[in-house]
Amino acid sequence: MLRGITNLGQWITWNPDTRQMDVGEGGSIVFDRERVGEISNHVYSGPDWLNAEGRFVSPGFVDSHTHPAFAATRELEFELRGQGKSYQEIAAAGGGIRNSVKTLREIPEARLSDLISERFNQFLDYGTTTLEAKSGYGLSLDAELKSLRAITSAAQQVPVSVQRTFLGAHEFPDEYRENRADYVRLLTEQMIPAVVEAGLAEYCDVFCEAGVYTPSETREIARAAQHSGLAVRLHADEFVSTGGAELAVELGALSADHLMAISDDGIQALAQSDVVATLLPGTTFFLGQNQWAPARRLLDAGAIIALATDFNPGSNMTLAMPFILTLAVIYLHLTPLEAWQAATFGGAKALGLSQETGSLQPGFQADCVIWNCDNYRQVPYFYAMNLVHSVVKSGQRVR
Amino acid sequence: MLRGITNLGQWITWNPDTRQMDVGEGGSIVFDRERVGEISNHVYSGPDWLNAEGRFVSPGFVDSHTHPAFAATRELEFELRGQGKSYQEIAAAGGGIRNSVKTLREIPEARLSDLISERFNQFLDYGTTTLEAKSGYGLSLDAELKSLRAITSAAQQVPVSVQRTFLGAHEFPDEYRENRADYVRLLTEQMIPAVVEAGLAEYCDVFCEAGVYTPSETREIARAAQHSGLAVRLHADEFVSTGGAELAVELGALSADHLMAISDDGIQALAQSDVVATLLPGTTFFLGQNQWAPARRLLDAGAIIALATDFNPGSNMTLAMPFILTLAVIYLHLTPLEAWQAATFGGAKALGLSQETGSLQPGFQADCVIWNCDNYRQVPYFYAMNLVHSVVKSGQRVR
Repeated sequence: MLRGITNLGQWITWNPDTRQMDVGEGGSIVFDRERVGEISNHVYSGPDWLNAEGRFVSPGFVDSHTHPAFAATRELEFELRGQGKSYQEIAAAGGGIRNSVKTLREIPEARLSDLISERFNQFLDYGTTTLEAKSGYGLSLDAELKSLRAITSAAQQVPVSVQRTFLGAHEFPDEYRENRADYVRLLTEQMIPAVVEAGLAEYCDVFCEAGVYTPSETREIARAAQHSGLAVRLHADEFVSTGGAELAVELGALSADHLMAISDDGIQALAQSDVVATLLPGTTFFLGQNQWAPARRLLDAGAIIALATDFNPGSNMTLAMPFILTLAVIYLHLTPLEAWQAATFGGAKALGLSQETGSLQPGFQADCVIWNCDNYRQVPYFYAMNLVHSVVKSGQRVR
Repeated sequence: MLRGITNLGQWITWNPDTRQMDVGEGGSIVFDRERVGEISNHVYSGPDWLNAEGRFVSPGFVDSHTHPAFAATRELEFELRGQGKSYQEIAAAGGGIRNSVKTLREIPEARLSDLISERFNQFLDYGTTTLEAKSGYGLSLDAELKSLRAITSAAQQVPVSVQRTFLGAHEFPDEYRENRADYVRLLTEQMIPAVVEAGLAEYCDVFCEAGVYTPSETREIARAAQHSGLAVRLHADEFVSTGGAELAVELGALSADHLMAISDDGIQALAQSDVVATLLPGTTFFLGQNQWAPARRLLDAGAIIALATDFNPGSNMTLAMPFILTLAVIYLHLTPLEAWQAATFGGAKALGLSQETGSLQPGFQADCVIWNCDNYRQVPYFYAMNLVHSVVKSGQRVR
């Protein structure tokens, strides 16, 4: 166990009093076992201290939207999309989520868990110390439970905090395409109770979108989840506005995610609520689209925003949060400091963990990244590369 | 010295007979000292063999357009641009290239060389084994010579092949803004002869663009360079079409670079010539623009294309060629294999080195990358991350 990180260069953290990011320089972060004790002006020395040697230090990223429970990569679809096929055309031809459902149902649970462990380790490589992990490529009782068990066992192998989301409502499986109501009933009457009974998830998510789940179906599933004790988060207004953001507010969801097509009413609804607007610009980038989520309008209206990767094999094959900062600065027009806030405090807030992690306040998890650079602007600036020097999780150096 | 790389998974290389990329599977690359001997179906073993353990193997990248000779990063301009300031506005306010000129002129040569060495090492980290390095932030006789000497000494410290370009015509220095003809005379009568006399460059480049060098000034500088024995390459048609591509053909340049604004006539001119069309999509991305170079039209017309980073502190702060492949697939609509071709064979052709490097033919430099993935599509697909497993330069493992 480290006593702390000493000889800091620049450092940043969310400040709950000013509700802004603090930018400091020098001193040390003193740990109290696995938690932050204080930030001190003093520079310590000794073998139990990790010496940042003047480098920039940040809280670990909190990535609040990922889909790591998949069996196979889909690089052929990536090539086809570059050649002009749309995500929707590829899905209609048996690609997309349905492709992943096929391979997920076939893979043995132990192998799936190993794959997820590798991915969790890669998240750590790029500075993420807390992440949310969704099921959603199983779409059957067995395969969804398998996915959540594999996430759970992988999380025990890797020193990263994992929050689990049941996303049985990611799509309709082929066998229920003509019987949507039956699948919704399966979700609400069998799958959600089974997930809760087995203690396999903290949240339930629904892909509320034209062609996927209607607002009415979404409401039904989310209410059942809440009734069973799961917190709710929504995929909302990704390609078409269907009132997903407003529905998230109505339901008291933790977060409404994507929002590339959010309406003016949706922006106002989020701004007047505690529901976090989770923006996933990596997906916009990877799909080659130019409809970016209206981050500035959300911020200016007063909404709380988070940035996350949306790591998944179809629409965003990266788990590198530093690159999400880059996109946020260039394409969402956030300042680098606003982007850092959204990727640390914002992510924690979107997971209901803003009293636990995402900043360097006393009593919070001692989750920190030392960077091979001088200041917070350089992480998004020096892009598509890995500037992580070392990673501390719960007071222990893990990278 | 390695005997070769054995136990290949998938591998790719340019094939000069078919003028396409070959995709193979298994076997070994046998080295003949620092060169490729052959690709063999046999799998060897022993301590002198590097075991790829079934991983994907490619030639090292040839990055034919970089600006690594700068003294200071410019992340504040990156923030300003995200907030809506244009590259041109920032330049007019003393930022941009003029900012870099100020710091470059002040930095001691040894410190500059150290910085460049660090950057050359980072290129290797991401799989680049040959790169072109430009001066161009000095814009005075002394500072340009200092830059080229620093590049030269840095290249001696790092196991990467470096080709040097004199880019005194990157901008007009402030002291000559009202006397452009005098600066052109300084370039042609003093700087080029001094560079050649000292043996400090292989090429001369000119930024031919509206507001920078006119076609007529470009022609004058390029002719002087050719007269002194330097090969010519041009920054052409980046923001506005000024006939830069056509001029590159007229001059017999090795390469015309950028080409976001190339005209139809320019495309035809390149297609009917040996001048390589060097595309730099990282710059389009980093500047937040959506005017991508017309890669497909160039290819379909019959032009030879290269992909390069344009690594520089103002308009593209990455040196990761894998991410350039990603952009090429998503935004230039190249297939992954076309992108690989452009980033290996194409880069070598743009440097006049296509008989030396950029592919795994017998007699070529043994420059290879082993990747932590299964196939060539995954390198651009699994993006903004570093999948490099190991790098071999001239038959020696260097990463």
